[in-house]
Amino acid sequence: QGILERLDAGEIVIGDGGFVFALEKRGYVKAGPWTPEATVEHPEAVRQLHREFLRAGSNVLQTFTFYASEDKLENRGNYVAEKITGQKVNEAACDIAKEVAKEGDALVAGGVSQTPSYLSCKDKAEVKAVFRKQLEVFMRKDYFEHVEEAVWAVEVLKESGKPVAATMCIGPEGDMHGVPPGQCAVQLVKAGASIVGVNCHFDADTCLKTVMLMKEGLEAAKLKAYLMSQPLAFHTPDCGKQGFIDLPEFPFGLEPRIVTRWDVQKYARQAYDLGIRYIGGCCGFEPYHIRAIAEELAPERGFLPEASEKHGSWGNSLSMHTKPWVRARARKEYWENLKPASGRPYCPSLSKPDGWGVTKGARELMQQKEATTEQQLKELFQKQKF
Amino acid sequence: QGILERLDAGEIVIGDGGFVFALEKRGYVKAGPWTPEATVEHPEAVRQLHREFLRAGSNVLQTFTFYASEDKLENRGNYVAEKITGQKVNEAACDIAKEVAKEGDALVAGGVSQTPSYLSCKDKAEVKAVFRKQLEVFMRKDYFEHVEEAVWAVEVLKESGKPVAATMCIGPEGDMHGVPPGQCAVQLVKAGASIVGVNCHFDADTCLKTVMLMKEGLEAAKLKAYLMSQPLAFHTPDCGKQGFIDLPEFPFGLEPRIVTRWDVQKYARQAYDLGIRYIGGCCGFEPYHIRAIAEELAPERGFLPEASEKHGSWGNSLSMHTKPWVRARARKEYWENLKPASGRPYCPSLSKPDGWGVTKGARELMQQKEATTEQQLKELFQKQKF
Amino acid sequence: QGILERLDAGEIVIGDGGFVFALEKRGYVKAGPWTPEATVEHPEAVRQLHREFLRAGSNVLQTFTFYASEDKLENRGNYVAEKITGQKVNEAACDIAKEVAKEGDALVAGGVSQTPSYLSCKDKAEVKAVFRKQLEVFMRKDYFEHVEEAVWAVEVLKESGKPVAATMCIGPEGDMHGVPPGQCAVQLVKAGASIVGVNCHFDADTCLKTVMLMKEGLEAAKLKAYLMSQPLAFHTPDCGKQGFIDLPEFPFGLEPRIVTRWDVQKYARQAYDLGIRYIGGCCGFEPYHIRAIAEELAPERGFLPEASEKHGSWGNSLSMHTKPWVRARARKEYWENLKPASGRPYCPSLSKPDGWGVTKGARELMQQKEATTEQQLKELFQKQKF
Amino acid sequence: QGILERLDAGEIVIGDGGFVFALEKRGYVKAGPWTPEATVEHPEAVRQLHREFLRAGSNVLQTFTFYASEDKLENRGNYVAEKITGQKVNEAACDIAKEVAKEGDALVAGGVSQTPSYLSCKDKAEVKAVFRKQLEVFMRKDYFEHVEEAVWAVEVLKESGKPVAATMCIGPEGDMHGVPPGQCAVQLVKAGASIVGVNCHFDADTCLKTVMLMKEGLEAAKLKAYLMSQPLAFHTPDCGKQGFIDLPEFPFGLEPRIVTRWDVQKYARQAYDLGIRYIGGCCGFEPYHIRAIAEELAPERGFLPEASEKHGSWGNSLSMHTKPWVRARARKEYWENLKPASGRPYCPSLSKPDGWGVTKGARELMQQKEATTEQQLKELFQKQKF
Repeated sequence: QGILERLDAGEIVIGDGGFVFALEKRGYVKAGPWTPEATVEHPEAVRQLHREFLRAGSNVLQTFTFYASEDKLENRGNYVAEKITGQKVNEAACDIAKEVAKEGDALVAGGVSQTPSYLSCKDKAEVKAVFRKQLEVFMRKDYFEHVEEAVWAVEVLKESGKPVAATMCIGPEGDMHGVPPGQCAVQLVKAGASIVGVNCHFDADTCLKTVMLMKEGLEAAKLKAYLMSQPLAFHTPDCGKQGFIDLPEFPFGLEPRIVTRWDVQKYARQAYDLGIRYIGGCCGFEPYHIRAIAEELAPERGFLPEASEKHGSWGNSLSMHTKPWVRARARKEYWENLKPASGRPYCPSLSKPDGWGVTKGARELMQQKEATTEQQLKELFQKQKF
Repeated sequence: QGILERLDAGEIVIGDGGFVFALEKRGYVKAGPWTPEATVEHPEAVRQLHREFLRAGSNVLQTFTFYASEDKLENRGNYVAEKITGQKVNEAACDIAKEVAKEGDALVAGGVSQTPSYLSCKDKAEVKAVFRKQLEVFMRKDYFEHVEEAVWAVEVLKESGKPVAATMCIGPEGDMHGVPPGQCAVQLVKAGASIVGVNCHFDADTCLKTVMLMKEGLEAAKLKAYLMSQPLAFHTPDCGKQGFIDLPEFPFGLEPRIVTRWDVQKYARQAYDLGIRYIGGCCGFEPYHIRAIAEELAPERGFLPEASEKHGSWGNSLSMHTKPWVRARARKEYWENLKPASGRPYCPSLSKPDGWGVTKGARELMQQKEATTEQQLKELFQKQKF
Repeated sequence: QGILERLDAGEIVIGDGGFVFALEKRGYVKAGPWTPEATVEHPEAVRQLHREFLRAGSNVLQTFTFYASEDKLENRGNYVAEKITGQKVNEAACDIAKEVAKEGDALVAGGVSQTPSYLSCKDKAEVKAVFRKQLEVFMRKDYFEHVEEAVWAVEVLKESGKPVAATMCIGPEGDMHGVPPGQCAVQLVKAGASIVGVNCHFDADTCLKTVMLMKEGLEAAKLKAYLMSQPLAFHTPDCGKQGFIDLPEFPFGLEPRIVTRWDVQKYARQAYDLGIRYIGGCCGFEPYHIRAIAEELAPERGFLPEASEKHGSWGNSLSMHTKPWVRARARKEYWENLKPASGRPYCPSLSKPDGWGVTKGARELMQQKEATTEQQLKELFQKQKF
Repeated sequence: QGILERLDAGEIVIGDGGFVFALEKRGYVKAGPWTPEATVEHPEAVRQLHREFLRAGSNVLQTFTFYASEDKLENRGNYVAEKITGQKVNEAACDIAKEVAKEGDALVAGGVSQTPSYLSCKDKAEVKAVFRKQLEVFMRKDYFEHVEEAVWAVEVLKESGKPVAATMCIGPEGDMHGVPPGQCAVQLVKAGASIVGVNCHFDADTCLKTVMLMKEGLEAAKLKAYLMSQPLAFHTPDCGKQGFIDLPEFPFGLEPRIVTRWDVQKYARQAYDLGIRYIGGCCGFEPYHIRAIAEELAPERGFLPEASEKHGSWGNSLSMHTKPWVRARARKEYWENLKPASGRPYCPSLSKPDGWGVTKGARELMQQKEATTEQQLKELFQKQKF
């Protein structure tokens, strides 16, 4: 059964978590380039992570092909060995995901993401050619900041005849050119997407708000599509329009922001109540976070994931702890209401995002021209009004 | 070369991280019982984690045999399948660790930990028999709150002729009967331990303080031993005498307390400066934390771990980021001085430990008698003075 | 010289601070009723506070007549002695303010504020009669949540021929019926106000935002008026539409939110830069906060207030401290950049306002009907969606 | 009835609050020199503050003579007018305090504090001469960091035949030369003090701990004295040995640390339960804080202070508020359990004290030699280990 059949049948589809961040912590991905050559270099590590997500309840295993377009890999080429082509990375990613998917009842989704070519040339034909090259291997897309590029990707993917899920990494303020979420959703569905939503860049609260704006846009345009959300596993109420990348803690100081399993259960419930049926996570989501989605929605789905064998729902495994006050934590109310301390009294609770207050013009210039010198940047900053 | 030869030669030995917590998040260990039946049930998951630590720089792979004594497994037996005996768990653990150790330049250490038998009977012969049974498989010990029990374990392990490293999970206030750290160290060395130190229960700052007290105790007694530290990967300045278990966030709300890789680098440097030569981590330590130890001490050790291929020291991999303000984070001063926000403005920075203020008598009663009813507990709490 | 002449001449007018809160802490005003009978009962205390504000740089002494309308005093009558009529309170307030004003170069402004009559009857004639009764004694108005009532007050005050300054206690979302700030300003100016702005209920950041919206509204309508701001001396970024009253700390736990003198200097500079020329404070403003406005704007005004004899600008009086590290604090950069700690690690940094998420209907019902029973309230809360 | 008669009769004596800090905020005292020339320059302001404390429940009005020794005034002389001699300041202070004391049932206590002469010469005869000169006007002492100097002061004061209360501004670690609190108390009582305790420099928790150590010292030495405490009205759990002066917020950024009236009630109850019978406050204590002591101990004392006419105990005056959720705050449990937010999410909850980690030698050198150059200081800082 394909993904649309499942959704049509009223099933909840549980996504997986963030490969890039999880494998960075395990030692197989380099922060900065974030490229997925591990599929070729260390397939056993990628395979194990897929297995953990499957075990945690994922129905869809997304191939680990983030930033695996030829142009991106070339861009980062100074450290990935020459022989590791995008072609090889993509093929290996598909093989591994398919192999693990067979171990359970899961689908495989190919992933394409935004390309350097868009920012550098914006030529429709050229960008589409890049996607088409990836498509030979698979189909599905996400992680786009510009709706125009996302639409081109959907159009290419649609050629394959397979269902396309299109997620953008935007917040309630819309894409980098100010196109609001509702309109983004409309354009993506018109281009052929069957599932639309958001992933990455923002925390669960913000993502749900954005998906709701998409839903309203679709309803106003009398269009239909399934909704999907894959937020960060970090609390980022303080981030600006471009999300967590601008927070001073990105990417090596995000630990105090990591969500608990209980935060995820709350998110899963809210997502479900809002009508979202493809519920997963992005950067920061570890297997136990995905399991929390599956446990929260177990009443609706009718079963628990395999990994729940090693987890008592709402902490009930603590009921056999030696200390009575720890045993007292074996209940839902306790964890639902806990306000966890950071253990960091010399740290603030919120940060001011970098690039905060940068004028739109300055921001676009800085993004589009990699060549921007630090001197030019400084001048731009000085010109702007805060 | 054995561990003592390495230490004698002036090498720094890097330990590994916390299997119990890491595998709980990956879906293979149950919080509460915390037993290691995964070595039999899911050897590939245990193997993969060993590999990641090895790749991150660990010189010693500790067998995943925490709480694997027969009496503990029986205690928790209601959910571990009958056929999975302590014998099988211990053997599988050793096989996996040895297999992975061969992939690199690492030693294997067998681990024994505290036993239900001690708390329930305190009979020396019986407790020693439990240890001896485990010993048939390996040698090394840690995670003891009572120095008496630890001494018995060392005596048994010593019979094997192999070097014994003995760590206790105590803070500067000493063991559960008030024996101060210096005296604990003296007793352990006299019983035959070649390496003494602390692990688990407290954060790096507290562990280093405790090891320093051990060092002073040994010096005063004119005894020699190598020092070892394996702290939590959580900030817990607010925990009481019994460590992080009493914090209300234990074990499912500790996320905001997770240390960054930079916190670990600071810890590794301090540990080294204080003369500690076996430097590792315990609960919460993931492979990237261990890599941080290896990177901080690379100048002293003369080489970087394999996993540093996927990591720029002090964030320098960010120098190729698209956004100039993220590129500006590619330097040591930035990460050293960052005070990371929690993103949780409705949460405090510190917690009051549970059981805080409990009288010593009440605490002992509660610990030693699993039978304590909630009613009795309530009365005990009411009697005490805060 | 009257206030308009001063403003026309380009002068900055400095207001005074919050009598109600300051005198509550000194023991002369009761939180809850907040009525000003102290003008009759303890004139020396009121006189002293006026003197302190004058000395701190205030150009306008506002009579202490908040909530001194006959109907409000009657409402609270159960504890104010019968013989203390609104008439007496108002007369005494004027006498004291005038007496102190003569000691320096200050004007006196009479104050009227919102009335129980508006909420209970909303009859224009009746409400106007209440204001007219107060007007016999003086003229000026502030503290209105409903622009309609504020307009009625301005119309009555205007009859006197004196200049009318009209401030509302609203935020950027506008008045309690949703009239946006720009439109409120337009209505007030059309009704006869020469000076418009905001006071109370919100912190400086929010108040400045609101005044800016008023300014834009006036510009769009091609109307002219002077701008005025009198924010709280509390940090309340977390308050909802109705301001600080809904915060759980109101009114007896606001201490950690109190602004420093440096926060006030920043506010004064921003207000000036935005074109506001009547700059004062409301609840929480103590004499030293007003002095901070006068010190910040001393370059523009050409002189320091009297109380600066006892204050070194930007902490320079510390240069004679015994400890070198305290002497090192005698400079602007130090205080400007200090992020002051709360000393309360068990407390959060933000609160969720009470009544947060209450539906508009429920809120109006609760406000307008004092009779609302707790049971009804509970039902209303249950009905709403958060 | 004198103070000892009252204490002998079992009465609780309530002190007053911090004149220096309160008058600094009102514009009459300069931070840095902190001298009390306001008694001559603005007697009405000093009189009003005395009145407020009396009204709030103070039984003892302490003359505003902090740092009023001739040598201190001379030291600060560059800004106090020549004609304002210590003699005049002291006389005026006594006159004002006596005048107000007559308005109620209060005693007057003269105050002497530490002198520049001690730090610069340490000559017993000279220092005693300075105290004797002040003594001609009154008797009582507090604010000493060195027990030796405090003992000399007590000896001089004792010559007058009046009861002497001696408080030191020390924490549990003892005086600046390391004399522990218990021993300080013993020395002071042997020198003639009838009442001993602590004031200033530390928060209530720390002060109570210190007084308890004094109590234990006296009991061990079989000496008897009444106990007294006058803590700061600031939360300072993070301050070092020398108290709040070393905190980076001292003295102009302490606002977020100000205690609530409920914090004071808790302090008053704890102080009473520990056997302290002279209970007051120091820097930061405003009249409403003193009233909180009087209200908390009203059951024991049998009456409420005058200022409680304008205060409902435990917030009950809110029961007549318009909004139901504010009315819901009119109860003890609410305020007792409130964890007040700071409204400052970009600020930490604790600070690292300046001078923290300074070696004892360096600290003493810096304190004793005002002449220490910045260069010398820098060198000292560099030498030490943190």
